[in-house]
Amino acid sequence: MAEPLGDRPVDLRSDTVTRPTPGMREAIAAAEVGDDVYGEDPTVNALEAEVAALFGHQAALFTPTGSMANQIALQLGAGPGAELLCDADAHVVTYESGAAAAYGGISSRTWPTCGARIDPGAVAAMVRPAGFHAVPTTLIAVEQTHNRAGGAVIPVETLTALRGVADEAGAALHCDGARIWHAHIADGVALSTYGALFDTLSVCLSKGLGAPVGSLVIGSTEKIATARVLRKRLGAGMRQVGILAAAGQYALRHHIARLADDHARARRLAEALAPTGVVDVADVRTNIVPLDLAKAPVDAPTLGEKARAYGVLVSVLGPRTARLVTHLDLDDAGVERAIDAISVILRG
Amino acid sequence: MAEPLGDRPVDLRSDTVTRPTPGMREAIAAAEVGDDVYGEDPTVNALEAEVAALFGHQAALFTPTGSMANQIALQLGAGPGAELLCDADAHVVTYESGAAAAYGGISSRTWPTCGARIDPGAVAAMVRPAGFHAVPTTLIAVEQTHNRAGGAVIPVETLTALRGVADEAGAALHCDGARIWHAHIADGVALSTYGALFDTLSVCLSKGLGAPVGSLVIGSTEKIATARVLRKRLGAGMRQVGILAAAGQYALRHHIARLADDHARARRLAEALAPTGVVDVADVRTNIVPLDLAKAPVDAPTLGEKARAYGVLVSVLGPRTARLVTHLDLDDAGVERAIDAISVILRG
Amino acid sequence: MAEPLGDRPVDLRSDTVTRPTPGMREAIAAAEVGDDVYGEDPTVNALEAEVAALFGHQAALFTPTGSMANQIALQLGAGPGAELLCDADAHVVTYESGAAAAYGGISSRTWPTCGARIDPGAVAAMVRPAGFHAVPTTLIAVEQTHNRAGGAVIPVETLTALRGVADEAGAALHCDGARIWHAHIADGVALSTYGALFDTLSVCLSKGLGAPVGSLVIGSTEKIATARVLRKRLGAGMRQVGILAAAGQYALRHHIARLADDHARARRLAEALAPTGVVDVADVRTNIVPLDLAKAPVDAPTLGEKARAYGVLVSVLGPRTARLVTHLDLDDAGVERAIDAISVILRG
Amino acid sequence: MAEPLGDRPVDLRSDTVTRPTPGMREAIAAAEVGDDVYGEDPTVNALEAEVAALFGHQAALFTPTGSMANQIALQLGAGPGAELLCDADAHVVTYESGAAAAYGGISSRTWPTCGARIDPGAVAAMVRPAGFHAVPTTLIAVEQTHNRAGGAVIPVETLTALRGVADEAGAALHCDGARIWHAHIADGVALSTYGALFDTLSVCLSKGLGAPVGSLVIGSTEKIATARVLRKRLGAGMRQVGILAAAGQYALRHHIARLADDHARARRLAEALAPTGVVDVADVRTNIVPLDLAKAPVDAPTLGEKARAYGVLVSVLGPRTARLVTHLDLDDAGVERAIDAISVILRG
Repeated sequence: MAEPLGDRPVDLRSDTVTRPTPGMREAIAAAEVGDDVYGEDPTVNALEAEVAALFGHQAALFTPTGSMANQIALQLGAGPGAELLCDADAHVVTYESGAAAAYGGISSRTWPTCGARIDPGAVAAMVRPAGFHAVPTTLIAVEQTHNRAGGAVIPVETLTALRGVADEAGAALHCDGARIWHAHIADGVALSTYGALFDTLSVCLSKGLGAPVGSLVIGSTEKIATARVLRKRLGAGMRQVGILAAAGQYALRHHIARLADDHARARRLAEALAPTGVVDVADVRTNIVPLDLAKAPVDAPTLGEKARAYGVLVSVLGPRTARLVTHLDLDDAGVERAIDAISVILRG
Repeated sequence: MAEPLGDRPVDLRSDTVTRPTPGMREAIAAAEVGDDVYGEDPTVNALEAEVAALFGHQAALFTPTGSMANQIALQLGAGPGAELLCDADAHVVTYESGAAAAYGGISSRTWPTCGARIDPGAVAAMVRPAGFHAVPTTLIAVEQTHNRAGGAVIPVETLTALRGVADEAGAALHCDGARIWHAHIADGVALSTYGALFDTLSVCLSKGLGAPVGSLVIGSTEKIATARVLRKRLGAGMRQVGILAAAGQYALRHHIARLADDHARARRLAEALAPTGVVDVADVRTNIVPLDLAKAPVDAPTLGEKARAYGVLVSVLGPRTARLVTHLDLDDAGVERAIDAISVILRG
Repeated sequence: MAEPLGDRPVDLRSDTVTRPTPGMREAIAAAEVGDDVYGEDPTVNALEAEVAALFGHQAALFTPTGSMANQIALQLGAGPGAELLCDADAHVVTYESGAAAAYGGISSRTWPTCGARIDPGAVAAMVRPAGFHAVPTTLIAVEQTHNRAGGAVIPVETLTALRGVADEAGAALHCDGARIWHAHIADGVALSTYGALFDTLSVCLSKGLGAPVGSLVIGSTEKIATARVLRKRLGAGMRQVGILAAAGQYALRHHIARLADDHARARRLAEALAPTGVVDVADVRTNIVPLDLAKAPVDAPTLGEKARAYGVLVSVLGPRTARLVTHLDLDDAGVERAIDAISVILRG
Repeated sequence: MAEPLGDRPVDLRSDTVTRPTPGMREAIAAAEVGDDVYGEDPTVNALEAEVAALFGHQAALFTPTGSMANQIALQLGAGPGAELLCDADAHVVTYESGAAAAYGGISSRTWPTCGARIDPGAVAAMVRPAGFHAVPTTLIAVEQTHNRAGGAVIPVETLTALRGVADEAGAALHCDGARIWHAHIADGVALSTYGALFDTLSVCLSKGLGAPVGSLVIGSTEKIATARVLRKRLGAGMRQVGILAAAGQYALRHHIARLADDHARARRLAEALAPTGVVDVADVRTNIVPLDLAKAPVDAPTLGEKARAYGVLVSVLGPRTARLVTHLDLDDAGVERAIDAISVILRG
């Protein structure tokens, strides 16, 4: 149960805006802690073990953000002079400030953005072999669910085929799983099934799961040992991390199953707004509702501004694209208020 | 006129294999030189001025390779944390050892390989604006002619449209012009017309033009001043460069118009091999003949090996793709010998 | 007041091992939070403003560690191809995993380690001017107090002279102020006096001040705006950071003046151990007691192991060097227990 | 014998200014060449084998500059996150545009500049072990002869001791041997003796030896295979390199022994200028004459400008330091002209 909204706006910009619940705050306040640089924080150690086990991997490492978890995984999979293949709209090449190249020296080539509808054959055709001249493809990355594709869920069959492509190429396969919890709920695929398909995964506690701060990168014992060095180099060898890890533990135990509520609210938003022509209900499978304003009477910045006046916050992604995201801090009343406001605005 | 081949093989692997002609060797031997780190080599200074003028730009800088000329231009156009857009098969992300990311920290996203048939609208759709979250697109690069697309020539209309896309995006536009001479001959477009479309170009003296070593990066006075620093950082602040520049001057004066012969020989190769079904004559407009062995009785490595036994060298690009390249050191007899050998092999 | 130690060891390894006090935990539990990526976390905003004001600067930015605060400041002061001058034993080139070079591309040259006894003239003599050939010196960094020099305090006169050197060189001056609070208490110099001497400072809430996680980088509004981008690139654009910032606010208000107790305990340790010949009392001015075991009957690893058996943890820095650090979680009883144990061990 | 100077100035700025002799030009014009990217240039292959053999190593690789040869060796010896130790005035951290950090991600710490008088114990004391926290020292580099120390020659005993330090540290030892030929002539130490002391060496054909362009990096077969990839990434996979390698071969055969003449001329300069108080004859052992103008009536820029008016070019290194360098293009008449001019200027 979220904090009462009071006169707070209905914030649909992102699921990153959630505030810790009272139960989570209690867990934070009571957290047993130690110095994690010495490996002595019992809460973060327990969280790392728990998350690794959930995905059937040997080890995991806490990081302050999903971006850092991704970037560490990318550096594990591709050194300077090697390349990453991913979707042209992937978070790792769009929203992480160019860190893969700037800090990892990693070259990247992209397939045309296609959300969940990845063609494994097309990916295979992009692979370059190792060799003196060509930049070798040592890493392929996917995003589950796919943020810019409106929370689309990549079918497990597609992921299995990509695993085959990666094996054939001798490349590692990484999953940016910031919202993999949503795919798990939407498709009913076990987290360990996802885990088995990837060399590394990142997962986030701070988006749908509602923790204030924290993500993890998951992989083999050996990879995570190197990840620890890379995290230090990135400047995130934090100390009494149990304060944050306790919130993460709480989130794992209480906030996964309830994502179904977020999905239902997203679907309610989509269905109610469908008559305005800006949303395709079939595209909304998790907690993100993409708005295509190409033919709408207002553009995205105008929608954003007018909605704000109604106490509703939306995310403006481009001149004619916007996004609504459901989450822990949102209730049914907020959804209805958003529907009313946006419907009025879109009717001109 | 090339040196007599004697019992040398007919080398169709690349136009990089050419040896300096007697006239070029005379120019080399007589080159007036000085210390170019002090800016005192008269021959390289003259060559740089001549090439800049050919393309209607203010300045140019000699580099040991086309790859370095490209990489300097990429670093001029995109700093760490910014991104480059280019074809998924572009030389700059395929054959330059990942330098753009490894040394320049430059992120890259690619459009699906399409050789000369670039869709400017699709490129425009990939552009990301500058902003806190997204990696800004500050550079777009094309390749004229396009190496992996079989020497395809991008129409000047397409380039003009891309110039518009770049302007709209506030991005720089770079041309990897290693074989721009061939486009100039094939399409009759003036070098200065090409020059006017780009912020920076690289051109190569050592491929079709037959010089032993050397390329140039071309741009504004200010950009080339920075390029000089970057060249130093890359370890190529050479001294008595006039030795190489003299060959380049000779090449510019004697080896541009004759590229028409290379094009004719490539066309002769394509037409003679067309009945075997591995080449589409319509694709061969300059000096590269791509062989598609998808349905051929031999794969590419086998073709390469068997042709070598006949004294003919071809370039193997993939399991079922190979390439023939015509150049200065090839004569009609060599072409016929290659046709005979490859025809025999492809007939099984 | 620290938590009761119970049967916990007396931990003198570092001041990073402190656990939040009950009062701090209350502040954490009650923290008002928001999404800091959107700039909406009121507690972190207040903390950043408070710290900037303490040092008389315009702005500050919260980071997960002192290393990240330093690395951001280094990237602000020196781009790829420029250089940093610092002590050969500085934290920034010793304990930050090579990030300055690996991620910032920053070259470094070092003066012979001298702790607080910096010779500004010698630093000035190392400066290289900007120019085509030489790597320009754009950044000088010092560490106050100096960790590897046993918490030595650089006199404000020396810092003032270095400010002059930096100005003369056209270079920025950075202070790694992880323990600048200790210098402030030991020398009675105002934080704003220190602040006025530097272009950027990093300060840490998680060492002597006892917060679980958190540091800040301090500078001009413009610099901190860029720092925000760099923090994102490093993967530390965290969300509800108020959870951590609240602990930091509490630490600032309650734990600065009490550092005098840590200094007194360090002095008590030094005086009590002086007869063993491993410590020079004159060197101990803050909360670090360096042990020189060159002539001791045991080497550093043996001391560490034996002390552990007595329930006393010390930090082993080299074959013959070790370190004791006093902090918030240590009381007088712990100090006496440590003195007894180490004295016994050192008597052989 | 150099080309006649005619009314050319007497150029004492550097030994990089030499122009190829008639014999060298003949060798260049007659060079047998091939495509070195394919490993088919017979002249460069022969040169690489010859240089490797001279130093008793397995392999060598041609590069366009000594800076590139050094930078490749540094990247071979230290990856991102590892560190290099060297003299604070070493060429690799002074005159190579920060490439070690900017492109190699290599951290560096420096010992106080001491030219040839290196204290191996002091270097040993700087070494950091591998470990989670510290930046590991994996590479130590020296410069023989030492450029900024006036061509000082490091005694072979010192080098042998440093070899021991490196072995103890598990670090590689690199020699920037741009002018190692001069040390060989001055001290009579065999090149193979030097070779045996280092994991990698760079040597330059374009400074004292008088070739227009070219250096080599020397090491094991395995290291040089990696060096080839790094050279490609740096943009120096040149084609018909035999044009340059032929000059290098000529230089090796004709221009090593004659360095004794350059040394004698430098000594003549030093002795003749000693009475002015700006040069210490004991410091001049090879081909560089450092001028210390601390107490001279003119500063270095003024000396440079006035000497130029007399047709004598000197190198200005700092406000009160300058340098004279003897080389292949200088004859006795030039030396006397320089002595006369500089003596007049220094007498005020």
